[in-house]
Amino acid sequence: MPALSIEPLIYGIGLAGVAVNAASGVLEAGRKPFDLFGMVVVALAAALGGGSLRDMLLDRTVFWVADQSYLVAALLAGVATFALVRVVRLPPRLFLLPDAVGLALFTVSGTQAALAMGAPWLVASLMGVVTGVFGGIVRDVLCNEVPLVFTGELYATASWLGALLLVGLAAAGVSAGWAALAAASAVLVVRLGAIRFRWRLPVFTARN
Amino acid sequence: MPALSIEPLIYGIGLAGVAVNAASGVLEAGRKPFDLFGMVVVALAAALGGGSLRDMLLDRTVFWVADQSYLVAALLAGVATFALVRVVRLPPRLFLLPDAVGLALFTVSGTQAALAMGAPWLVASLMGVVTGVFGGIVRDVLCNEVPLVFTGELYATASWLGALLLVGLAAAGVSAGWAALAAASAVLVVRLGAIRFRWRLPVFTARN
Amino acid sequence: MPALSIEPLIYGIGLAGVAVNAASGVLEAGRKPFDLFGMVVVALAAALGGGSLRDMLLDRTVFWVADQSYLVAALLAGVATFALVRVVRLPPRLFLLPDAVGLALFTVSGTQAALAMGAPWLVASLMGVVTGVFGGIVRDVLCNEVPLVFTGELYATASWLGALLLVGLAAAGVSAGWAALAAASAVLVVRLGAIRFRWRLPVFTARN
Repeated sequence: MPALSIEPLIYGIGLAGVAVNAASGVLEAGRKPFDLFGMVVVALAAALGGGSLRDMLLDRTVFWVADQSYLVAALLAGVATFALVRVVRLPPRLFLLPDAVGLALFTVSGTQAALAMGAPWLVASLMGVVTGVFGGIVRDVLCNEVPLVFTGELYATASWLGALLLVGLAAAGVSAGWAALAAASAVLVVRLGAIRFRWRLPVFTARN
Repeated sequence: MPALSIEPLIYGIGLAGVAVNAASGVLEAGRKPFDLFGMVVVALAAALGGGSLRDMLLDRTVFWVADQSYLVAALLAGVATFALVRVVRLPPRLFLLPDAVGLALFTVSGTQAALAMGAPWLVASLMGVVTGVFGGIVRDVLCNEVPLVFTGELYATASWLGALLLVGLAAAGVSAGWAALAAASAVLVVRLGAIRFRWRLPVFTARN
Repeated sequence: MPALSIEPLIYGIGLAGVAVNAASGVLEAGRKPFDLFGMVVVALAAALGGGSLRDMLLDRTVFWVADQSYLVAALLAGVATFALVRVVRLPPRLFLLPDAVGLALFTVSGTQAALAMGAPWLVASLMGVVTGVFGGIVRDVLCNEVPLVFTGELYATASWLGALLLVGLAAAGVSAGWAALAAASAVLVVRLGAIRFRWRLPVFTARN
């Protein structure tokens, strides 16, 4: 069963996504006058929010309740980033990079989790988007920032493109590992390109 | 079993509510510089948010995960509205109308879903309110607008009145179809009256 | 089984927490031009939001769906507070007190509910924090206020300290009643001290 053989890969991708999103939470919270615990809360919300919503929607056991190691990974990554920020001056927009990596990893893990549960393709792709973007939305709301996802740059769009690619490759019989790599790369390329080159979809403001 | 015989009615009401709320999402998002995918996300959140929260609270399978046709209805209605907005100039407050229709339909479908699961009357009426208003709240938050529901006009109140009427009619033995029609009409009349005639409950600002 | 013998205590703590949080919701909403139903909605969100999220995360039946008495307690407390506010002038910051009591009671009931389900200690302590703070966040967002929890005062931190104390005392074999009393007192002392004496954790704004 291919769904089982890629379990370690999904697991590793999930842990990495959690750690990277926790780091992005600390990097953004670090620009606000938050105390240590406040930063940890933002890091946990960024790291665990998207997957929690996905699991509640799919009626799965929430991943970090089932396996505490995700929680530990988020805490360790958050504290490590916190310590790093104390000693190194980081460029202000640095958190955009781990945020993009987290978006890619969570999109893949969310879509794969939904496919593994037998969700239809459209539902599965949306679960990837939910997993990818919801943690970042919660992070930004907690930091009282306008969520990155609504700034018009390709964000949810990048996630959805990657999720649809993953669903399509899976349907075409491509092995799960390569499909995951291709989809994560697609999300990352589109998202980083959008940041670097200010790619945007044409914006159609209604005349009303 | 009357709970089964009205299933097609509930199903139709649910699909119509989803489509109408998706349209309201696009109409509001259309006034913001969102790209196509951003509008789709807002449409989906408006169309599916309330029912998703209801199903998670009731520990049911989330309706659009169980039946992808809701998702398809939301997408089609969203894209159709998007196309319409491109070619026709629409009055700015137009989205208040589908929003009110969606409120009525979702209030009825939410209350009936909870009653069908044997929820007590107070819980069932609240589930109607949750189903009715939560999608609109998410839509407004995503569009960075103050949620309509908090503007003091009769909104959650209209929903709750309709839900309580439905619960009361069901307890009085009125057939489900007529009860649904009466409750949806009540929500719609109160909500549209509130918009048109600026009906408001007396507002009591505390002296503290 | 000790987990059963303290059920009445948990039940009482839960009901009291719900009532107190509903009161805090009305006290805050009372400063806004909300109608009666709007205040009731805010009261219910404040009273039931945190426990609902905890139960959805733990995949338990949501507490107020399983037992309507929580809903009735929230409604009665909300309406009673509303009546009180009509006849007595209350100091503006009064709602900080029931908010702190509610934080303490919910932290304890949330942590104990998670422990009773066999959740690992770190997950259990976080469930206490979620139960304690989420209702207040929703209340503040509905009232369009910056959530108290983000103002930098010890808030989530107070909740987490109490939850960790409860988990530690439970692991050390302290009886559930005393552990609950100690943990609730700890949350209350830290939170009220933070309000009164403006205690804050050192704030480390990143240099980036």
